[in-house]
Amino acid sequence: MGKIFIDACFGKETPYTPVWMMRQAGRYLPEYMAVRAKAGNFLNLCHDPKKACEVTLQPVDIVGVDAAILFSDILVIPDEMGMDLEFIKGEGPKFNDPITCDEDIDRLIGGDEAASKLTYVYDTIKLIKERLAEDKALIGFTGAPWTLATYMIEGQGTKTYNICKKMMYSNPELLHKILAKVTEVVKLYMQRQIEAGIDVVQIFDSWASAIEPGKYDEFSWKYMVEIADYLKERYPHIPIIMFPKGVPAFLDKVYGNFDVFGVDWSTPMAFAKERLGDRYVLQGNMEPCRLYSKEATTHCVEVIQETMQGKRHIFNLGHGILPDVPVENAKHFVNECHRVSRKK
Amino acid sequence: MGKIFIDACFGKETPYTPVWMMRQAGRYLPEYMAVRAKAGNFLNLCHDPKKACEVTLQPVDIVGVDAAILFSDILVIPDEMGMDLEFIKGEGPKFNDPITCDEDIDRLIGGDEAASKLTYVYDTIKLIKERLAEDKALIGFTGAPWTLATYMIEGQGTKTYNICKKMMYSNPELLHKILAKVTEVVKLYMQRQIEAGIDVVQIFDSWASAIEPGKYDEFSWKYMVEIADYLKERYPHIPIIMFPKGVPAFLDKVYGNFDVFGVDWSTPMAFAKERLGDRYVLQGNMEPCRLYSKEATTHCVEVIQETMQGKRHIFNLGHGILPDVPVENAKHFVNECHRVSRKK
Repeated sequence: MGKIFIDACFGKETPYTPVWMMRQAGRYLPEYMAVRAKAGNFLNLCHDPKKACEVTLQPVDIVGVDAAILFSDILVIPDEMGMDLEFIKGEGPKFNDPITCDEDIDRLIGGDEAASKLTYVYDTIKLIKERLAEDKALIGFTGAPWTLATYMIEGQGTKTYNICKKMMYSNPELLHKILAKVTEVVKLYMQRQIEAGIDVVQIFDSWASAIEPGKYDEFSWKYMVEIADYLKERYPHIPIIMFPKGVPAFLDKVYGNFDVFGVDWSTPMAFAKERLGDRYVLQGNMEPCRLYSKEATTHCVEVIQETMQGKRHIFNLGHGILPDVPVENAKHFVNECHRVSRKK
Repeated sequence: MGKIFIDACFGKETPYTPVWMMRQAGRYLPEYMAVRAKAGNFLNLCHDPKKACEVTLQPVDIVGVDAAILFSDILVIPDEMGMDLEFIKGEGPKFNDPITCDEDIDRLIGGDEAASKLTYVYDTIKLIKERLAEDKALIGFTGAPWTLATYMIEGQGTKTYNICKKMMYSNPELLHKILAKVTEVVKLYMQRQIEAGIDVVQIFDSWASAIEPGKYDEFSWKYMVEIADYLKERYPHIPIIMFPKGVPAFLDKVYGNFDVFGVDWSTPMAFAKERLGDRYVLQGNMEPCRLYSKEATTHCVEVIQETMQGKRHIFNLGHGILPDVPVENAKHFVNECHRVSRKK
């Protein structure tokens, strides 16, 4: 049995347009909260293949999305590179010894030595694949090197990214050294995710918008393209989705060997279509807060469907779902995507 | 003696291109920190015309910018509308009773009753005008109604704006009622600022990027235009600068009776020039983190100068200066703007 989601990623005809949601396995689902409570904390949940598998599958069963996305966190990579990740309640992720110099980078575990430590991720993937329905796809993912580097340099989330950017403008070689080392790990990590069974790769550049457009290619996009090239050469049958968040001014310059471009909600779908619609399948881009209202959801789904007539797309939100969205509204979104796109 | 800054706002020839910096009166200046320490807290500083005047003038004297910007805070408006503003150390501004319903809005002080309470602002302006050099301009400012409303509804700064946006999609009438009431106060507040002596108006829509592009006009821009229309009708000789932050995807739709468009750093100057350069003077847009490096600063100033050849512009940052920027780098920026643009 074929997977509609994979066909859609490759721009093939499908009986309807598939849909999934960023952060679809998450806090808006009571079933997720129950598993998470048992796990103790977020990182435990990532480290426990059985529980991670369970929460990965929940939205497929409960909300009816066409693809599952592996439950994990982008920061497991720097964690296994030796940076000792903590999640502090109410504060988010934290690294106590952020990267400040060459020696800090040299001390990091690199390449396959780091990638081979992420066994809990590969075990989760294998468990999911045993249980996921044949016609649903499993999306594996990674953070983009730039996004990972921001945490590794700042030590935590940041509003201003001023430590990273001081490095970008004053010592770009050091930043490139970090990015190159992370890129090597990401390549091998995604290769191992594919070998474990994922059907699709998504690269999240969640902090893309922190870089001025003129520097974006140099410090982020080219590393994402390098990862995509590495994977495409070896696994041409695995679609790759690029999602740089908040970069409408960059769209004219998008290039690379990947299949799907994730359009965030700050970028009108028509704007993305005009610039990228001939070359890539577009994914997105409903503003997640529309999920607070069924009417606002339906309206947006209809506008996206209308806008994308004659081009290829996948429905999704333009960023992650928020924790206080009613589950029935998430179901409504999925149903509406299927309804408006179903071939008569 | 004419003011180069005002001429530049109206697109007239000037001997060099003027420059100022957003947040130019601020924490990167030891002289500012000294005055602020004496004031006790930030709000006291805003309420004290003598001290507010002093910090307003500092960057003109120390850094050599071509215009001073009134030292104040955008949240003095909701404060005087009766919302009781607090600044909590390490957390930022806070309103303890955010707006949730019609009655909350009805209770707010509106119109000139609110505007007339902001006497400390008007007194500050009068003091500044007595001391500011004749050839320098004084910029007055306000927050855009949308940006003010986000604080009034969320009660504080927010990453997700989910309370505002729930209102936007589920109860847009309520949001419009807040925006309309704030707009009335802003009009009269800016009118009184002009009467007190400001030479230029800037409207900051700092949280513009929190609205999806398709809703931006309805919930923010049209109110900003309404304010601009009101002021232009009465004070055509006062230039108006619009600064909606983070809206590159909106630039094709910019309209209105104002003079200068502030280009944030996420929008390439060439991109803005192509869309708006024939109609408006452009202001901006150096990425503020470039100030960490003199070389990166010079490079950007040269690129902006080159890009804007044949069009009209004003140098500025694309967002506020950060507190840990060396003062000499800020001076370097100002000098470089003057150097590259000076008519031979």
